[in-house]
Amino acid sequence: MKEFTYINWIQKQLKYPPEVFIPSGDDAAGIRIGKSSILVTTDMIVEGIDFNLNKATPYQIGYKSLAVSISDIAAMGGVSEKLYAVATVALRPVLTDNFGQELFLGMKSVANKFKVSIVGGDVSAIKGPISITTTVFGVGGKKQPIRRSGACLNDAILVTGTLGGSILGKHLDFVPRLTEAGILTRSYHIKSMIDISDGLLVDLNHILESSNKGAILFESLIPVSDAARKLSRKGKKPSLRHALSDGEDFELLFTMPMREADRLLKEQPLKIPVSLIGLIHKKTGILLLDNDGNIRKLKPEGYEHFK
Amino acid sequence: MKEFTYINWIQKQLKYPPEVFIPSGDDAAGIRIGKSSILVTTDMIVEGIDFNLNKATPYQIGYKSLAVSISDIAAMGGVSEKLYAVATVALRPVLTDNFGQELFLGMKSVANKFKVSIVGGDVSAIKGPISITTTVFGVGGKKQPIRRSGACLNDAILVTGTLGGSILGKHLDFVPRLTEAGILTRSYHIKSMIDISDGLLVDLNHILESSNKGAILFESLIPVSDAARKLSRKGKKPSLRHALSDGEDFELLFTMPMREADRLLKEQPLKIPVSLIGLIHKKTGILLLDNDGNIRKLKPEGYEHFK
Repeated sequence: MKEFTYINWIQKQLKYPPEVFIPSGDDAAGIRIGKSSILVTTDMIVEGIDFNLNKATPYQIGYKSLAVSISDIAAMGGVSEKLYAVATVALRPVLTDNFGQELFLGMKSVANKFKVSIVGGDVSAIKGPISITTTVFGVGGKKQPIRRSGACLNDAILVTGTLGGSILGKHLDFVPRLTEAGILTRSYHIKSMIDISDGLLVDLNHILESSNKGAILFESLIPVSDAARKLSRKGKKPSLRHALSDGEDFELLFTMPMREADRLLKEQPLKIPVSLIGLIHKKTGILLLDNDGNIRKLKPEGYEHFK
Repeated sequence: MKEFTYINWIQKQLKYPPEVFIPSGDDAAGIRIGKSSILVTTDMIVEGIDFNLNKATPYQIGYKSLAVSISDIAAMGGVSEKLYAVATVALRPVLTDNFGQELFLGMKSVANKFKVSIVGGDVSAIKGPISITTTVFGVGGKKQPIRRSGACLNDAILVTGTLGGSILGKHLDFVPRLTEAGILTRSYHIKSMIDISDGLLVDLNHILESSNKGAILFESLIPVSDAARKLSRKGKKPSLRHALSDGEDFELLFTMPMREADRLLKEQPLKIPVSLIGLIHKKTGILLLDNDGNIRKLKPEGYEHFK
């Protein structure tokens, strides 16, 4: 079964009452509750897919399990006033008490950092790969959530942090960009936003498809991470390829009018780098202006298709 | 690792902001949102523990995955005005497209029946037992949720439906008692409520421990199911033992003043049986007045300990 085919099929089956103002398909769903609103997101991480027990500590696994959902709330613009979480954990009975406790403490550490109240959960035994599902919901807030679908022609495309090579460690200890999203949303006119979980090209493509637009990226402006360079030295792929296609950086990718981007880049209100990497274009797919001055078309399925 | 030890340890780590008026440890958590409130519950079902692929259809598995969470909302008195759900599904890649679709359709059927809007989810591959986590949240409603902790001395103890032997089929196609909970809460003064997921004795004990009370049950009044009798004929346990200790009947267990119980039993407003099975007592554990007129002490860990 193909994951995206299945998800697309499911999304076609869903019907929403009128108070669901952001349906399935964004980083979180949105529901109006009287004068307030709720954002809700759910994510599962699975042993052998999202982490391995010989490379990640239980603390890191717990941390990641909740951080991925907090990142989804960040991707909606970090507009919620209060955050709550529930979690389910499937563990092999042979794992020690200490394993389970460390896993929870990792989850709690990121919950505390972002004032997320854990209010419930469920625990089960499993005879196979362990997994954790977290559901985070955000309540209230004065600002409208930022959706994937709001990108406009000539918007600047920006990204926080540096990209690529998260497999070397960042995928386990990344900091969800909730604080940064809140600053951006409060002080600037952000048009669209997503977090980079599947890779820059794939996630940019989500924005482009939702907004019915294209994009042009500038090779010289892509913030390639040290980890991407390190991976590149070890392997065969150029570091740019890692920056464009590697998943799980959990940085914010967003668009805004060029004048706003100008102001943001001058003011630098975030404690982490923020980079202009391209422009929203008419519907042409994703183009790359490379360092030799050539324009090439990138395929969002992944860097494998890059020619 | 022992499930209840782990859950108890986790619950001691949790701290709640003041708007969390029902913390972890009830069937759902409760959060005040301005003049409204949210109830939230999350449950996981796992292959090899909660279902087997050679005995359950994917449709039934999907149905059960959401029905268990709806049952938790019912157990809070079915007071929520609107219900929403998200789900995560971990599937082996070798399973067919049809399997995944049937699973979702089973989930959708119970969602439709109870007007639960599915608003999001996540899908992952797994190399091992499949699992599904559902999170259901209920918003609004005029009535206060019914907690486990409200049982009062001399309250009547009642239960919907019949009990025991759910393994013969009911654990896959039970109807969450949401409608019944709503009728009970609107028209009667219910003091405490829970759904029977772990077995009558274990779940009654949850009410008793939360309420700091004991109970006396009457053997002659326990509504033993046909399935419990059938299992008893096949195996060695008396059918009463199945009714007291088998899990996953997902019936409502609740307490109310005797006068209210009297009125309920006369009016019979539910389309399913409702039975008086005992009384709330001072803190003496769970006593059984058996058909020979003897009083015996029952251990809530399960009928194994019954002597």
